[in-house]
Amino acid sequence: MLAETLAAIRAADPVAIAEARAFQDRLTKPRGSLGVLEDVAVRLAGAAGACPPPLPAPAALAIFAADHGVHAAGVTPWPQEVTVQMVANFLAGGAVANAFAAQAGVPVTVVDVGVAADLPDAPALVKRKVGYGTADLSRGPAMTVDQAVRAMEAGITVARDLVAGGARCLITGDMGIANTTASAALISVFTGADPAEVTGRGTGIDDETYERKVGIVREALRVNGLDGGTLGSSASEALRALAAVGGFEHAALAGFILGGAAARVPVLLDGVIAGASALVAAALDPSALDHCVAGHRSAEPGHAAALARLGLRPLVDLELRLGEGTGALLAHPVLCAAVRVMHEVATFDSAGVTEKPV
Amino acid sequence: MLAETLAAIRAADPVAIAEARAFQDRLTKPRGSLGVLEDVAVRLAGAAGACPPPLPAPAALAIFAADHGVHAAGVTPWPQEVTVQMVANFLAGGAVANAFAAQAGVPVTVVDVGVAADLPDAPALVKRKVGYGTADLSRGPAMTVDQAVRAMEAGITVARDLVAGGARCLITGDMGIANTTASAALISVFTGADPAEVTGRGTGIDDETYERKVGIVREALRVNGLDGGTLGSSASEALRALAAVGGFEHAALAGFILGGAAARVPVLLDGVIAGASALVAAALDPSALDHCVAGHRSAEPGHAAALARLGLRPLVDLELRLGEGTGALLAHPVLCAAVRVMHEVATFDSAGVTEKPV
Repeated sequence: MLAETLAAIRAADPVAIAEARAFQDRLTKPRGSLGVLEDVAVRLAGAAGACPPPLPAPAALAIFAADHGVHAAGVTPWPQEVTVQMVANFLAGGAVANAFAAQAGVPVTVVDVGVAADLPDAPALVKRKVGYGTADLSRGPAMTVDQAVRAMEAGITVARDLVAGGARCLITGDMGIANTTASAALISVFTGADPAEVTGRGTGIDDETYERKVGIVREALRVNGLDGGTLGSSASEALRALAAVGGFEHAALAGFILGGAAARVPVLLDGVIAGASALVAAALDPSALDHCVAGHRSAEPGHAAALARLGLRPLVDLELRLGEGTGALLAHPVLCAAVRVMHEVATFDSAGVTEKPV
Repeated sequence: MLAETLAAIRAADPVAIAEARAFQDRLTKPRGSLGVLEDVAVRLAGAAGACPPPLPAPAALAIFAADHGVHAAGVTPWPQEVTVQMVANFLAGGAVANAFAAQAGVPVTVVDVGVAADLPDAPALVKRKVGYGTADLSRGPAMTVDQAVRAMEAGITVARDLVAGGARCLITGDMGIANTTASAALISVFTGADPAEVTGRGTGIDDETYERKVGIVREALRVNGLDGGTLGSSASEALRALAAVGGFEHAALAGFILGGAAARVPVLLDGVIAGASALVAAALDPSALDHCVAGHRSAEPGHAAALARLGLRPLVDLELRLGEGTGALLAHPVLCAAVRVMHEVATFDSAGVTEKPV
């Protein structure tokens, strides 16, 4: 399924990009006056291979939830059981992601890819558990490569199912106590940045815990033989790195991104967890990034490093550090507005507006 | 009407602010993890004097349109007739503001406060023309003080009417070829910044026009006796400065802001034109700012200077430089999301989520 998904991914269409750029200049606004929104609309035209690109609506949010063996190493003061409790909160509609999703008119799906407890059935819960939490990445590989691939395939399947159900934009969400530790490790491996540069305080930790967290990320790289500075470019090396220091939700999100790209549906990325996962997806096929939009920039330092490497500019930058898909949900109406311009705005000719003399 | 509006404005309620801040910390998210959105929701609680504050919806956009005598001085390559043409485009639903308003579910009202032509009637057009364009601000006062007050009262009336019609958030919009020149002059006068620091390229002008524009702003301050560096703090001085170097739409927007504040309805500010107008409103009553939210930061340099003086942090920062209300319209769903959190998100207690040990 992974190979078939990778084979289906197409790079952006340069003809549609050129057409979209020229069309933007015919609309009744000064050239370039929509700033970043013109660029993102042009990118979506390239991704879709069509000018104007389809509206990225309706959208669907998938929150991939999982636990992390590294929690036992003391990287966060939050108890691990909060992952399960927050899954219940999402399913009851009481989390911030639910409020933001309601505002944006986006349905929420929660996917258990590796929560460390059995969860009761619920209509919005998709059960694709690969394990009861990963192993401790600071003592050896967090997952086997087989587990990582199964989690990726869970993400691909969720993307396919949501697109089959009518979604025209996929929004990434995540939940997993300790998952910023795995994200920092992945970002360090895939960007070559030192662990100290890309490890953050996650949900809020004190100096002592922060120092320990940086040390654990460094140890994870060492123990897994990933501290060489540069990762090879083969797919097998990327999968091995993902399995070694990632989480089930990172693997699933990488699959979700590839699945969206294969379906030519834009994937709106949330924060640092999504950024780490997008680095994995891009290592498997750089063209997948043509279908990704960075929803926001998180306050986590690793996210800025990931976005820089991915070459993506975020739409929202409000110092959020919550995850769940919250930043991407805020960006969804902005993304829709950018594309609506190409569907609804009059041209200078059609509106009888005098154009600025060149 | 102006005096009565000013008398009705209340400063933020410190009790509601403290209550909102404490309430944010009880919601199922790490403390502070919604960054700027927590601050803005707390500010709205203070403005409304209620925790949680009312949802800022439905919203209403008013685009104040007017012409500028300084156009004749050659500050822009766009012909003045584009103001009229764009008003027609708004009324036909073909402008970017219409597309963004449709995305946000916000109705659009266009107000003629000083377009240099008679406009045909239209359902969404409010006729409050104070003059056929202002006089050239670089040769003397752009408006008489009486005209400025009448334009402000037009803005107050529009705010009142929209609130009476059910609006619970007022969004500022503007249209007027050459209005970034008047904005730069106002911002220079009200912040004390040099004209060269706050004059920008508006819709896009070449180096020669830009140099001329800076010189014209400087001359406007000199000829109107406003180049002394600091403006006195009396209301009459603020009104005289507004009349001297503002536009009809700036005066109307200042009134619109005061009208919203008096009604305790949040005013979502667009770009540099709104920023200049908010400086005028704040000079008349600083408490009016407690009811304002900065929708976005425009690419115009004067806008950053205005926001710094106003002490407002923008929600959207995407290098837009279009006006019309476009930046504020993008911010409206973000503002709603921030407030929805306080209405819909579960507390740690109610959701049974374990709180991080302190």
